[in-house]
Amino acid sequence: MSFSVGRLALIGVGLIGGSLARALREHGAVSHVVGCGRDAGNLHRALELGVIDEATHDPLEAVRGADMVVIAVTLGATGDIFARIAPGLGTDTIVTDVGSAKRCVIDAARAHLSQGCARFIAGHPIAGAEHSGVEAARADLYVRHRVILTPVTENLPAAHATVRRMWETTGADVYDMDADLHDEVLAATSHLPHLLAYALVNCLLDLDTPVNVFDFAAGGFRDFTRIASSNPAMWRDISMANRTALLAVCDRFEHTLAALRGAIEAGDDAAVEAGFGRAKAARDEFLRRRAAP
Amino acid sequence: MSFSVGRLALIGVGLIGGSLARALREHGAVSHVVGCGRDAGNLHRALELGVIDEATHDPLEAVRGADMVVIAVTLGATGDIFARIAPGLGTDTIVTDVGSAKRCVIDAARAHLSQGCARFIAGHPIAGAEHSGVEAARADLYVRHRVILTPVTENLPAAHATVRRMWETTGADVYDMDADLHDEVLAATSHLPHLLAYALVNCLLDLDTPVNVFDFAAGGFRDFTRIASSNPAMWRDISMANRTALLAVCDRFEHTLAALRGAIEAGDDAAVEAGFGRAKAARDEFLRRRAAP
Repeated sequence: MSFSVGRLALIGVGLIGGSLARALREHGAVSHVVGCGRDAGNLHRALELGVIDEATHDPLEAVRGADMVVIAVTLGATGDIFARIAPGLGTDTIVTDVGSAKRCVIDAARAHLSQGCARFIAGHPIAGAEHSGVEAARADLYVRHRVILTPVTENLPAAHATVRRMWETTGADVYDMDADLHDEVLAATSHLPHLLAYALVNCLLDLDTPVNVFDFAAGGFRDFTRIASSNPAMWRDISMANRTALLAVCDRFEHTLAALRGAIEAGDDAAVEAGFGRAKAARDEFLRRRAAP
Repeated sequence: MSFSVGRLALIGVGLIGGSLARALREHGAVSHVVGCGRDAGNLHRALELGVIDEATHDPLEAVRGADMVVIAVTLGATGDIFARIAPGLGTDTIVTDVGSAKRCVIDAARAHLSQGCARFIAGHPIAGAEHSGVEAARADLYVRHRVILTPVTENLPAAHATVRRMWETTGADVYDMDADLHDEVLAATSHLPHLLAYALVNCLLDLDTPVNVFDFAAGGFRDFTRIASSNPAMWRDISMANRTALLAVCDRFEHTLAALRGAIEAGDDAAVEAGFGRAKAARDEFLRRRAAP
């Protein structure tokens, strides 16, 4: 069953929202896109690039008459957006989001939207974002990428099916997952690595060596810390929004690190090699699964 | 002053040793390369590729008559190599190595070589090694890469100058650094990130989630854990050889992580954003310095 929407309101016109609009346009699956954001320059550029048809700074104005609303702002702003758009949503309007944590967004939707989660379907496209802003938006960003939807019991099946088809239209592989499980998985695969990368760079900054240690860092360090160049405000929001799961997996990580550290301290060659080898095997398998068609 | 060597003995013909031989050949700076290794297939391939002129499995045989000996084996094997080559070294033969930790190598040279560190100059080329083996060896691997030499008081100045010129011939930027400082810096910029990457993958493996968490990992995870695909035996050796510095910086890291974790737990938005922002600024500056000519 193909997907098509008349009027799409895009709250937040950055890489994630902009790429969704571009993908839907490329597939002729959207008639009119209203973009809403705070940065006038970015909105103007989005108009120029043809990502959106109409621009506004007012979320309430943006959603009036919309068939579908996609909230693609930072997690910290999501609750406020729900509160502001609630009075303008039509009775049939479907709302979805793209946030990196899902339990908090579902709670906010229940608190602020008059229909609660009947027509709000929480979603999270897992797509890398080295660059940000609408300039970086690409129609193929989601092709073969995973999008996780986290349904709740109040969701109307038709609304859920519509959001699923929207993402499938972009070329994404769509999965349903329990919101708490999503938050636990993403804390492990994404939020914790960001925290570790930020912590590592700060650890190095705090060393009192007579040389700049960064001058003697190589490609391994560069790749390991790439995510430490991510937007601090966005990652503050994600860390706070997914605090419970992040702290839990951080504790588990500290335990795992302490075990490896203990094996090194004890001079236990076999345990260290086994620990490293187990990780290498899993990481190599991860690459193989990614490469598989 | 240009560098040129008659007979070079290369103990260990992998990416690092092979690239050095290729670079010296390309600059006409070496007449004859004897390659020594345990893997007959790899030595055969090194001969075919013209990386070496002669092959042997016996380190003692390899160094007989050599003007320069480069030890490019894993750290765990270095002490044994010193012991085996010692009887075959000429009185003027210069010896150097490429190990990722330097204090332990200097101690081993003092213990095993009859001249101690008079003509042994400890060195460490900081060059990424995603691939390994002689097939991956490239003449330009060291161009604009840093090579750290860690001189000790017994070093003969002429021997030190010769090893420095050898590396400069490959296009590398050569730095002298105290061995303990080297070990501290590399523990921070390279050995700790490897330990963290291995630990993260193992932490994820130990989660008891009903889905394969790796299926929901994206580009950030891939880059963060790239170094977890490194050779476990090599990194066991490095971790053990540089144990003191690695454990010390690991303790500091755990302290830094605990501080960030505490700020998240306390809901201290400002502290979390400041911590992330500080890391981003330093990491971005690291990239700028690397890109600078």
